[in-house]
Amino acid sequence: MAKTWKTEPTEQLRVGEGFRLADVDPASTPGFTGGKQYGVQSLESGAEQLSELQEKLFADSRAGGGTKRVLLVLQAMDTAGKGGIVRHVVGAVDPQGIDHYAFKKPTEEELAHDFLWRIRRELPGVGMIGVFDRSHYEDVLVAKVRSLVSPDVIEQRYGEIVAFEEELAASGTTLVKVMLHISFDEQKARLADRLARPDKFWKYNPGDIDERNLWADYQDAYEVALQRTSTESAPWFVVPADRKWYARVAVQRLLTNALRGLDLGWPPADFDVAVEKTRLAAS
Amino acid sequence: MAKTWKTEPTEQLRVGEGFRLADVDPASTPGFTGGKQYGVQSLESGAEQLSELQEKLFADSRAGGGTKRVLLVLQAMDTAGKGGIVRHVVGAVDPQGIDHYAFKKPTEEELAHDFLWRIRRELPGVGMIGVFDRSHYEDVLVAKVRSLVSPDVIEQRYGEIVAFEEELAASGTTLVKVMLHISFDEQKARLADRLARPDKFWKYNPGDIDERNLWADYQDAYEVALQRTSTESAPWFVVPADRKWYARVAVQRLLTNALRGLDLGWPPADFDVAVEKTRLAAS
Repeated sequence: MAKTWKTEPTEQLRVGEGFRLADVDPASTPGFTGGKQYGVQSLESGAEQLSELQEKLFADSRAGGGTKRVLLVLQAMDTAGKGGIVRHVVGAVDPQGIDHYAFKKPTEEELAHDFLWRIRRELPGVGMIGVFDRSHYEDVLVAKVRSLVSPDVIEQRYGEIVAFEEELAASGTTLVKVMLHISFDEQKARLADRLARPDKFWKYNPGDIDERNLWADYQDAYEVALQRTSTESAPWFVVPADRKWYARVAVQRLLTNALRGLDLGWPPADFDVAVEKTRLAAS
Repeated sequence: MAKTWKTEPTEQLRVGEGFRLADVDPASTPGFTGGKQYGVQSLESGAEQLSELQEKLFADSRAGGGTKRVLLVLQAMDTAGKGGIVRHVVGAVDPQGIDHYAFKKPTEEELAHDFLWRIRRELPGVGMIGVFDRSHYEDVLVAKVRSLVSPDVIEQRYGEIVAFEEELAASGTTLVKVMLHISFDEQKARLADRLARPDKFWKYNPGDIDERNLWADYQDAYEVALQRTSTESAPWFVVPADRKWYARVAVQRLLTNALRGLDLGWPPADFDVAVEKTRLAAS
């Protein structure tokens, strides 16, 4: 296959110094060399590579002493396509290697603990690719927009998140933090589609409009959260998401690059191959 | 597509009165009308249907009051292909709708509880398809063959399992219990393959040969367990597994039939569609 990326999304989409969310066009396809048809093809052909890397990650954990794991964090406004990423990118990988968790509104028990308590409980095991559909970032997004806690607490949480993620990175977790960035107009179209199709009603929630009416506040909260928590060891990537095919192929590439960076090989036998061949022959 | 099954595996492979494991030929392909090529095609074309049924099951749980869920229990001797079933059958479905859990040798904490304690903790949520790679049946299989508990305790456990599964069925869980049935010779070939390929070493465990050397005891333990726990509400299916393509297409069909039996439709809107359209337009 021809070269698909003229700039790697790992560089191109990364949140760095002076980041402004408004500078990212949700309809753009930064770094990708082709259009939709090529994107769909590229997603398909990239699945095999991602799948093989995942198997090596899993194998690595079985060799004993392995500590490597990956955590994909997905954040977005409603309808931005988190579910599609899980289905079409993560879904191409062996389910045995995936720890998927969708965080909902916190329960009373969860609220009785520190905000990271429920997050820690769902961290992926060694050798796994964890996927968080929403995450601890809700605690500096909805919590801020809805004033669920004081500004001081929000301020403090940015620091706690950075420290938490540094701890994860130091103990073997590669974080891939993705914000799917959709436009206000595209969200309207997608919500309209859900309201037009009886097979989509179950995905619609009247509360989605309440959140939509706070759009600007959410964009602000995202911008600050991304600025404050995009670090060397746990960077954020803002993925334009008005074009579903682009968002999927970009997240696939981000994950693939993260796994490639782990330099995985098949672990050597931790038994004597010749001895085992003899035992098998005699059985 | 032409008719693929002359007899449904739900009937053909079911463990009923007078079941004897030795009567099932692991190399056979009961009920299926074609060979490997057709089987592979059929698996592919069946994936979409299974996937759509899963989405309906998931949607059903969001409507409020839903209790339906499915639990696929996979049991087998080593190398029989549990992993392949998860990857190629379950893997075709949205990961968001799958609760997969692989039971290992019990931990000390687990052993300090009743044998069903750890099982209950991993039961699928409403709307989910749970997949158990090994299960509470290990507690009447390895536990029996290795005399980890007394024969009286094993005897008691059959009854406890039947009662447990009846409780699950009564509260909305459709159980699909599958034993993948492989031959002694085929296992030898598959273990030899793992020992011949450095990219497969990580899947090999010297303990596999120890278990293999107890083959007849395991076959006996399986036969009794299946006889004692195949009930109306939670039947066992013995799937011949020497031909991987057959095992996969058969388990796909068992799952599909189980989901079909739930008579799922898209849940109606639990909001006023016209009102929401107006709210959206004004947003």
